Amino acid sequence: MLLGDLSRSDFQHSLSPVFARLCQKLKALDLVNLPLGWQDLEEGVRMNVMEFETTLSEGKKAELHRKFVDIQLLISGQESIDYGLAQPNLALFDEYREEDDYQLTPEIEHKNSVILQPNMFAIFLPYEPHTPGNAVNNQPQMLKKLVVKVPVELLNS
Amino acid sequence: MLLGDLSRSDFQHSLSPVFARLCQKLKALDLVNLPLGWQDLEEGVRMNVMEFETTLSEGKKAELHRKFVDIQLLISGQESIDYGLAQPNLALFDEYREEDDYQLTPEIEHKNSVILQPNMFAIFLPYEPHTPGNAVNNQPQMLKKLVVKVPVELLNS
Repeated sequence: MLLGDLSRSDFQHSLSPVFARLCQKLKALDLVNLPLGWQDLEEGVRMNVMEFETTLSEGKKAELHRKFVDIQLLISGQESIDYGLAQPNLALFDEYREEDDYQLTPEIEHKNSVILQPNMFAIFLPYEPHTPGNAVNNQPQMLKKLVVKVPVELLNS
Repeated sequence: MLLGDLSRSDFQHSLSPVFARLCQKLKALDLVNLPLGWQDLEEGVRMNVMEFETTLSEGKKAELHRKFVDIQLLISGQESIDYGLAQPNLALFDEYREEDDYQLTPEIEHKNSVILQPNMFAIFLPYEPHTPGNAVNNQPQMLKKLVVKVPVELLNS
């Protein structure tokens, strides 16, 4: 899992080449005015730009992916994301939906949370459970964010 | 900033080549029985193995480094580490000690915290402020950890 802030001039220092390239492309965009919905970041790499209201984390399920890395970038608002670093026990997840590449679990073992400010990002590798879109200080608010879906095959490119 | 768990078989997927290599070397060590003190992880890369009691985070100062990346790996116990992702305002830090490569600030802007379990690691790049060694749930406890000091010149190797 990686955390960073696109506003920094040195954000790419912690990133492997593929993430550095994709985050440079994100930084070059007019994020606040980006249209909503699915679009290409580059050939073969799609991203989804969303606006929604954050919700309390209690009772929400955590997700993990197998075939895609998530680059979750906050554009406006504040967002809390729960995550787990330990190897997930897949027996505690429901069935894997191959077509949509996700499966859910009611609880993250050794759960941590990070609060993102605008331009901050979290990168979740396959099998890293996460629950995004949570309210900060139990105060739901509107946010704009995007999620880049990076095919796992690009990790070694 | 990077977070991971050496216990996982896939921990290196999120890491750039230099961190993957160094973390593979850490994983091959008998961490629990590692002697305390400074030692070489590889030629030119030193690490410090420590045992100490965690303390409450209130009133502690945060540090940042300029010339070295920290790979902070927890070996036993539980540790909470405060960190900030935003570009630090150096005017809020005290003087930089070049010989020891650190400077301190009373407070981290947009502070977050992560709780590490044994074998989990946090990697702090230069200019990423962090306050390690904090008690979890306000319960001080003994822990064993190590910090690898990675010269920033190795980032592009």
